[in-house]
Amino acid sequence: MNGAESLVRTLVGGGVNVCFTNPGTSEMHFVAALDKVDGMRCVLGLFEGIVTGAADGYGRMTDKPAATLLHLGPGLGNGIANLHNAKKAASPIVNIVGEHASFHIKYDAPLTADIEGIARPVSHWVKTSPSAKTVAADGAAAIAAASAAPGQIATLILPADTAWNEADGVAAVPAIPARAKVNEARIREAADILKSGKPTLILMTGHVLLEKGLALAGAIAAKTGAKLLTQLSNKRLERGAGRVPVLRVPYVVDMAVDTLKEFQNILLVGAKPPVSFFGYPDKPSEQQAPGTVITRLAELEEDAIDALARLADLLGAKEKDAAFQAAKRPPMPTGAITLDSLAASLGALLPEGAIVVDESVTTGRGFFPLTAGAPPHDWLNNMGGSIGFGTPVGTGAAIACPTRKVICLVGDGSAMYTIQSLWTQARENLDVTTIIFANGTYQILKGELAQVGAGNPGRKAMDMLEIGRPDLNFVDMARGMGVPGRRVSSIDEFNKALQSAMQESGPKLIEVMMR
Amino acid sequence: MNGAESLVRTLVGGGVNVCFTNPGTSEMHFVAALDKVDGMRCVLGLFEGIVTGAADGYGRMTDKPAATLLHLGPGLGNGIANLHNAKKAASPIVNIVGEHASFHIKYDAPLTADIEGIARPVSHWVKTSPSAKTVAADGAAAIAAASAAPGQIATLILPADTAWNEADGVAAVPAIPARAKVNEARIREAADILKSGKPTLILMTGHVLLEKGLALAGAIAAKTGAKLLTQLSNKRLERGAGRVPVLRVPYVVDMAVDTLKEFQNILLVGAKPPVSFFGYPDKPSEQQAPGTVITRLAELEEDAIDALARLADLLGAKEKDAAFQAAKRPPMPTGAITLDSLAASLGALLPEGAIVVDESVTTGRGFFPLTAGAPPHDWLNNMGGSIGFGTPVGTGAAIACPTRKVICLVGDGSAMYTIQSLWTQARENLDVTTIIFANGTYQILKGELAQVGAGNPGRKAMDMLEIGRPDLNFVDMARGMGVPGRRVSSIDEFNKALQSAMQESGPKLIEVMMR
Repeated sequence: MNGAESLVRTLVGGGVNVCFTNPGTSEMHFVAALDKVDGMRCVLGLFEGIVTGAADGYGRMTDKPAATLLHLGPGLGNGIANLHNAKKAASPIVNIVGEHASFHIKYDAPLTADIEGIARPVSHWVKTSPSAKTVAADGAAAIAAASAAPGQIATLILPADTAWNEADGVAAVPAIPARAKVNEARIREAADILKSGKPTLILMTGHVLLEKGLALAGAIAAKTGAKLLTQLSNKRLERGAGRVPVLRVPYVVDMAVDTLKEFQNILLVGAKPPVSFFGYPDKPSEQQAPGTVITRLAELEEDAIDALARLADLLGAKEKDAAFQAAKRPPMPTGAITLDSLAASLGALLPEGAIVVDESVTTGRGFFPLTAGAPPHDWLNNMGGSIGFGTPVGTGAAIACPTRKVICLVGDGSAMYTIQSLWTQARENLDVTTIIFANGTYQILKGELAQVGAGNPGRKAMDMLEIGRPDLNFVDMARGMGVPGRRVSSIDEFNKALQSAMQESGPKLIEVMMR
Repeated sequence: MNGAESLVRTLVGGGVNVCFTNPGTSEMHFVAALDKVDGMRCVLGLFEGIVTGAADGYGRMTDKPAATLLHLGPGLGNGIANLHNAKKAASPIVNIVGEHASFHIKYDAPLTADIEGIARPVSHWVKTSPSAKTVAADGAAAIAAASAAPGQIATLILPADTAWNEADGVAAVPAIPARAKVNEARIREAADILKSGKPTLILMTGHVLLEKGLALAGAIAAKTGAKLLTQLSNKRLERGAGRVPVLRVPYVVDMAVDTLKEFQNILLVGAKPPVSFFGYPDKPSEQQAPGTVITRLAELEEDAIDALARLADLLGAKEKDAAFQAAKRPPMPTGAITLDSLAASLGALLPEGAIVVDESVTTGRGFFPLTAGAPPHDWLNNMGGSIGFGTPVGTGAAIACPTRKVICLVGDGSAMYTIQSLWTQARENLDVTTIIFANGTYQILKGELAQVGAGNPGRKAMDMLEIGRPDLNFVDMARGMGVPGRRVSSIDEFNKALQSAMQESGPKLIEVMMR
């Protein structure tokens, strides 16, 4: 058994059953090993941003790592932006990055690069395997690193000769430690704050946003009068009818500050202290009111659900008292395409079990209220802020959850970053409906120009924010990659297109003309 | 004047007149400054791989840097692969990378990343500007660094507050040192080798491949019997009728070794000792024959043309005796699409002054002989081996040389990496004809599978090399980005499509069905 086969067998043995890839010469032994080993599904992306984003989506939905297989430094480089997003989301990923044969590196051939240097800013764990004998153990260590709570990026660099030389066999993955429990003092401290009667916010992100954590938070809120919010962006939020509904801290600084100003205490559960997305000349980076006391109940990697359960016990809070969301769909909207009518249509049509991947940027900021009462579904946000997140993450989520409908909400500017996702969706016949909000502009930047005080832009500046000259046609592009698409210019057309996409399986694209 | 304006004025004053960009919030002051300062053309790309590749193409054709303007770590990350290619090509580029306001970095907001860490593997020079007062001087230093022979990647990181705070004014670019002269001892050593009568190869790359350098090399070859070759890949080769023709070292190791085995001496002019693109289990990394003596005449950054002139003088070699290429076009081919008929069609139709950007991978390896006698033109190769190079570099070359026809030869797999280039070509109405060789496969990898000894791949492995399920349709994709396209399935159709593209101006796409 060569090193590549020992690694693939170690991955499969360690529960890594999916490999997103765009391989090259240095990875050919790994690719060849795929035919010798059962249990690894290999999914090709036409660009590495698709590969790494798909691994993020897969990791979010399964809570276990997929592998990526990438071609040397530049292949990893192409995947960096979505690895950045995945790292910020604490998604578990095992990157396998091919490298020149160890004897060849010194020649500085065209593809030679500082792979570890490229990997480090987007990885929690980086190692170059020194020989075929160590590849299996290094792969097992990478799985362990990736699986450590709350989820990490592990990058294993594989010189080609470590793949083709003879290996010693398969390695077992070390036991993954369970999430650490929060100590009793912090539980009691939180209870004291909640019993103080002072206005208190429980600010959450991470695994606490699964149904059980929300129910516990809802119980505590019902008992104590505390308010619940999530961070602006979250890895995976379980929401919809029968779950405890929760809104997000707004993106716009003034709105966030206004939302947070009433609280004398903020209790962090997984979340970080609320900070602005960007720094602005005359706006605060820290969004809580002056004097607000911030107290941490649980770190992101700790067992926040257990902590809330113990806190609820201490407070005598009961889940049955939580304010669960009633099943309630808005009426099907008519008339013009507006942000609200789009939200209503989604709220009216979201199917049970839908996975919504939200890169709708400016369009979707108000989608939460009207979709809150739809059947239970998941909502995934971009946590790293690098656009080109949506369609790759939707691709990976669909691989992870083949029986669920994936709905990608994507701005046109974001969609163009990683449009190649559509081809992988067509090839794998994934049940993904991609909704492009085509406003022909980097709309968010028009607001940002004013926020940063660079106001009154001239034509040259505005040109850099407009992507409607020439007009993009996403239906044409989708057809070119094997995905059927429809362009809609009224909310009635949107309703029909969405309804039909929800009733059929397979990849679809809806281009919503927003102007 | 704020820091952003001081930087833009410094760039323009330093001869940087083009900025390829995809900006975000942290770059808004820079964008706003563009309207206040004349002399900077700003070109938007829908993905940063387009932006950095375009800067590479521009730098190659003008021998001076364009600026890029990129959005924090992930924006730079998206540009890494083509910066890797540009670094290997020694193209001059000034990257301006926005960063959070300095007071905001410590909050670890979503887009916070180790930008210097991401920049370093693909930059010769990296600096984070500490204040608005230093931005102009740092910009001038970046231009100087980028302009140092043979061309470098300089990355200046610009915290947002250094852009919006008050600056001190504009900075002047330090004088750029001329290329260093080769010392006399090396000229004499080279002359001795060439006079020895032993079979000698002059192996070249870099600025020596401009018309004048080739003429001098041709004179020396005529006088001494030395053979001429270029590296496999070159930044810019001036070729065609009236110039000294030169072939490249082949990609395939066995062919390269066979080509080089006759030489007892290899004289390096800009080039590196010939090394294989990849290391293979049973093939050499060093391609020269055992016993071949390798001697360096000129480093890449030295004045190789001056060195050849002095060497020619010492040898009594005259340019007029060089073997210049006769004007000679092959007859227009008929029949099937083959590698040779495509080469013949190109040879028959290449217009004078064409800039050929070659990312044709397996298809174009044999294009040189039949295009050698076409009117004078330039040929640009990928020097870093990261695919997705062709269409961005063609975009930048067209911005650099608006009166010349750019012809991009691109494999379908490569084209999909950076297909967004087409939109920028449409927006700027660039005179680029993109020819996609659609074989529906990563053809090169099928050869590589055998070369690395991973042979006899099964279905799962072969699936990772096939991109024809579903079929891509580049004409649809091009239409979706505003570029008219034609799909051709016979060489007659190809001849007609190419002829018409050569006669009209503006962006065009030809999809050549290779199967």
